[in-house]
Amino acid sequence: MNFCSNCGSPVESKIPTGDHLPRFVCTGCHMVHYKNPLLVLGCVPEWQGKILLCRRAIEPRRGFWTVPAGFMENGETMQQAAARECYEEAMATVEVGTLLAVVNVTRANQVHVMFRAKMLEPKFAPGPESLEVALYDEADVPWSELAFASGEYALRQYFADRSACREEHYFHELTIRAHREVAG
Amino acid sequence: MNFCSNCGSPVESKIPTGDHLPRFVCTGCHMVHYKNPLLVLGCVPEWQGKILLCRRAIEPRRGFWTVPAGFMENGETMQQAAARECYEEAMATVEVGTLLAVVNVTRANQVHVMFRAKMLEPKFAPGPESLEVALYDEADVPWSELAFASGEYALRQYFADRSACREEHYFHELTIRAHREVAG
Repeated sequence: MNFCSNCGSPVESKIPTGDHLPRFVCTGCHMVHYKNPLLVLGCVPEWQGKILLCRRAIEPRRGFWTVPAGFMENGETMQQAAARECYEEAMATVEVGTLLAVVNVTRANQVHVMFRAKMLEPKFAPGPESLEVALYDEADVPWSELAFASGEYALRQYFADRSACREEHYFHELTIRAHREVAG
Repeated sequence: MNFCSNCGSPVESKIPTGDHLPRFVCTGCHMVHYKNPLLVLGCVPEWQGKILLCRRAIEPRRGFWTVPAGFMENGETMQQAAARECYEEAMATVEVGTLLAVVNVTRANQVHVMFRAKMLEPKFAPGPESLEVALYDEADVPWSELAFASGEYALRQYFADRSACREEHYFHELTIRAHREVAG
């Protein structure tokens, strides 16, 4: 951040009075600009025991596989965001179920929240951000070709819970290398 | 948003190519500026059956009572944010426990996430954003003087679960009037 989004003057990094962290503060209108973590919402869509994955058409991690996920938008709930991302990336309509995983990706300033989801019909196709979309049996999941560690974590917890006939939720923190952290 | 935070040129609101929502786009460097929901993290701190509440020293809702909560910062986990806010607002050290409530405050573009928490000692005091801090028995909670609907929702679920000897988590959506929605 170089300029104030309110008045266009340059900003400087300093700790505002009464605060304890450096913020971007406008040298003109003195507005304080906060930077906060972004929410990435996703789901593990299931159809008759198989899981829907998308192969990414965009960077980061183009060509790698992921559960449908993306940045939550203003005005929607977490569950609506997860369903929307699934429709946009995989053209699949899902009923969002229970909370599966919350992954704090602290180095990327993101929180990834993953839900279980049921596909309402076996209809899917690559959206603009996907090269292909496919249903996978657990045994066939391309683990070494997954795009993001948060998605891998969610899938592993999903299968572990499914084998144990339970639906718990799991917290995890990721601080590993950048190209495995940032969702698109 | 009026100006580009990157180059200082005016921004215009338009739908970027390949997108489906209007964004602020710079007329100079063409950077797209996204606006996404903010995470508010809080907890219900308990000491020997009593709950710690703070009376707000700042707007919005100055003079009203709330569970300790505030905006999540970059670089911390949800649980770290909840514990930090509790220390800042109530000078109380807590061990953050299970997930209690996720409140989608869609009209304010916020997601409020509340955890259960145990106070490690009966030590607390008003931080700079609180007028006073006090431990309340369930029967004495000042329901009509609570600052925010999300905190009230979390407290009601907390007590209901405690009576039933369970620790579940609950999703809720709030679309009510602004002064009950926005946490400080």
